[in-house]
Amino acid sequence: MGPIISHRPVTLAQVTSPAPAPRGPDDRFVPGRPARLVVLVSGGGSNLSALLEATRDPVYGAQVVAVGADREGTGGVAAAQAAGIPTFVERVGAYPSREEWDSALTAQVAAHEPDLVISAGFLKLCGRQFLERFDGRYVNTHNTLLPAFPGIHGPRDALEYGVKLAGATLFFVDAGIDTGVILAQVAVPVLDDDDVETLTERIKVAERAQLVEQVGRLAREGWHIEGRRVRLGTDTAG
Amino acid sequence: MGPIISHRPVTLAQVTSPAPAPRGPDDRFVPGRPARLVVLVSGGGSNLSALLEATRDPVYGAQVVAVGADREGTGGVAAAQAAGIPTFVERVGAYPSREEWDSALTAQVAAHEPDLVISAGFLKLCGRQFLERFDGRYVNTHNTLLPAFPGIHGPRDALEYGVKLAGATLFFVDAGIDTGVILAQVAVPVLDDDDVETLTERIKVAERAQLVEQVGRLAREGWHIEGRRVRLGTDTAG
Repeated sequence: MGPIISHRPVTLAQVTSPAPAPRGPDDRFVPGRPARLVVLVSGGGSNLSALLEATRDPVYGAQVVAVGADREGTGGVAAAQAAGIPTFVERVGAYPSREEWDSALTAQVAAHEPDLVISAGFLKLCGRQFLERFDGRYVNTHNTLLPAFPGIHGPRDALEYGVKLAGATLFFVDAGIDTGVILAQVAVPVLDDDDVETLTERIKVAERAQLVEQVGRLAREGWHIEGRRVRLGTDTAG
Repeated sequence: MGPIISHRPVTLAQVTSPAPAPRGPDDRFVPGRPARLVVLVSGGGSNLSALLEATRDPVYGAQVVAVGADREGTGGVAAAQAAGIPTFVERVGAYPSREEWDSALTAQVAAHEPDLVISAGFLKLCGRQFLERFDGRYVNTHNTLLPAFPGIHGPRDALEYGVKLAGATLFFVDAGIDTGVILAQVAVPVLDDDDVETLTERIKVAERAQLVEQVGRLAREGWHIEGRRVRLGTDTAG
């Protein structure tokens, strides 16, 4: 069993004004308040839009406190600016090395003191520093039922294999490709006349709903990770 | 795209008396009559029992015409005998080589002129001769959502990985381990307090229902295989 990572749940009465939180010595402890979300995008950010919509209701339990991108001119950053949310852009090409980019991205995200960092179509693999800093707090969604069909051609690969159930997986990112601890999975049928486009779209709808639902649950209930399992609620030692 | 294998559908009015069928030159053609099932078991055969129960209703569209085992004294063979169904046993140890066993098993099964051969907990891997003879007609069920977690410890492996959706896959057997063309898949949730036993049992229930449902559909509607896809109904060239 791996290390136990704990986040205290947020009571609904406390979900009123997002503010930087006091943290425990392990930088993990989140006392009652809205969960702070930093969302990373590379494009239009339909998942970001769904999260922004959900966070309008204070009962949801979370606030998007910043949106970051790896390129200029993304629709996701524009949507965040329109909503009055701080944004930042960190391009890999602006740094002499990938490590320095990773360091700058880590600092940008960390400055917003996130409880959760959410990849909403963020197309860059983050480096060691980022992953260590946000271990157990960086979530991504993949458009297959992992561990089947990791990588960037999930729906195409699933269709070619001939599975009858496809789906999406929400997970905490680790150093592997789509290998992290799984938070939630949702299945959708593969239909006889599906092509990559129709299947991808069906998965996307389920994936977005799952992301919004599960991020809200993490925010309201807290979570802890035991080995390869995510459990909602705080652990008994919390 | 692979070869197209076609079976004509059976009309319900024709589902009354099972009898050996005239076959086309490719040994694939099945005109209207109840589909003939040969079921292979290694144990008690709860899947066999479910099939026997289903085939009591002529509307189901199929009849179990023989049950075979790879060992003496199985509950599956006893249940078949009690139902008046022909049985046979072919032990690997009774032959000088695995190939000769495969040849004998192939002959035993072939003698019953099956439209479908069903592995219902049959623990032996069949050889080249068997697989060629019953290509596109030998179905097996696996207790994971393939291609994830092939092999004999599926539910245990799925639980250790930490998936949130487990399930069962019905497929046409090929020469690989659980790699054949997929006919159907069903998902079940993994619960927080699951152990291997509780998860395996939940999968089994869904797996058995899927097997009975899908075998009936194959029998009533016919099927054809195009590459890695099974399609119900006859192909247009049929």
